[in-house]
Amino acid sequence: MTPSAATPAYRRLSVEERRSQLLDSALGLFAHRAPEDVSLDDVAEAAGVSRPLVYRYFPGGKQQLYEAALRSAAEELEQCFDEPRVGPLLPRLARALDRYLAFVDQHDAGFSALLQGGSVVETSRTTAIVDGVRRAAAEHILSHLGVTGPGLRLRMTVRMWITAVEAASLIWLDEDKQPPLDELRDWLVDQFVAVLSVTAARDAQTAELVQRLADDV
Amino acid sequence: MTPSAATPAYRRLSVEERRSQLLDSALGLFAHRAPEDVSLDDVAEAAGVSRPLVYRYFPGGKQQLYEAALRSAAEELEQCFDEPRVGPLLPRLARALDRYLAFVDQHDAGFSALLQGGSVVETSRTTAIVDGVRRAAAEHILSHLGVTGPGLRLRMTVRMWITAVEAASLIWLDEDKQPPLDELRDWLVDQFVAVLSVTAARDAQTAELVQRLADDV
Repeated sequence: MTPSAATPAYRRLSVEERRSQLLDSALGLFAHRAPEDVSLDDVAEAAGVSRPLVYRYFPGGKQQLYEAALRSAAEELEQCFDEPRVGPLLPRLARALDRYLAFVDQHDAGFSALLQGGSVVETSRTTAIVDGVRRAAAEHILSHLGVTGPGLRLRMTVRMWITAVEAASLIWLDEDKQPPLDELRDWLVDQFVAVLSVTAARDAQTAELVQRLADDV
Repeated sequence: MTPSAATPAYRRLSVEERRSQLLDSALGLFAHRAPEDVSLDDVAEAAGVSRPLVYRYFPGGKQQLYEAALRSAAEELEQCFDEPRVGPLLPRLARALDRYLAFVDQHDAGFSALLQGGSVVETSRTTAIVDGVRRAAAEHILSHLGVTGPGLRLRMTVRMWITAVEAASLIWLDEDKQPPLDELRDWLVDQFVAVLSVTAARDAQTAELVQRLADDV
């Protein structure tokens, strides 16, 4: 359109945009190959940029690329949890789950690869990133539930459910994305209520919360 | 007692016994230190044997030691699932959980370390070992439940519950082993029934199973 259109597109991206474009390309590659089989050259090719450019952004090589992709996915995932504090609680949870499951659906095998890593991965650092997402999810849920000072049993219940959701996502990808997303989402919300109800039988704080959830709907 | 008592004890161990003794020592060390911080020399010292002996058993170094310890723990864990096929189903599950939780209790931080690995670890291989234990647990449960050809929803429910149990063990270790083991075990069994009941509302096979569980008790 303008004379500058002749300049290769990547010249016009900011550092942040460029980085994000490269990470998107890497995530796409992780969907089909183990992290250790994705080279910086592959990323350059997939992004349609020069190799030196990719090496400039990720001088630490595969490990740095993988960690950066994981961090970027973690940030995106944490954004899924952002939900206005209005309206009944369970529909809020359902909407956050919808966004999370859309992320899983979109990144497909790349999501499993990210979570499970590969031999290139420094496990302790990447585990910390993944744990950060789980922790953020738990904090969001507890804060939406309006619980101050959640006790051990309630915290455990929420964290166990989050792990079960993560397991469900991985199995769902393995099982050709069955059952359909809507059913999976409702199923997970129902499980949340069910496990809270089990905890309610042994914990007054959770019992009060389950009562509120029932009144809410 | 006999003249041979003067001979160092390790002379009399079979290869298998020796290996198992060294892995026990390694597991004890993993309880207090990240896998990458446990050297073969540390294992020799903890086991009270010579360094060359340990290097003979684990010529592949830390990585081999860690993997062997993980495999040994995996075998021990799978033995926890062995339960006679007699009597009501839920008490069978409770007994298997008791053995599993006793293992977690006994190995303490070593259990977390094993599951979470460290930077020394080749993630893809060790993930396969841990996944093998999860798969074995799921197969045991489905076979006790007497389900032939379990459908997707039932399989997912069982696998999600197994992941939740694993998460519960790690949190329990983090939380100074609270709540008490008996309560944790009953809580997990109740959660099993609760999540199956949620699935029963959307799956005929699971509904039939939940009915059998109710009749069983």
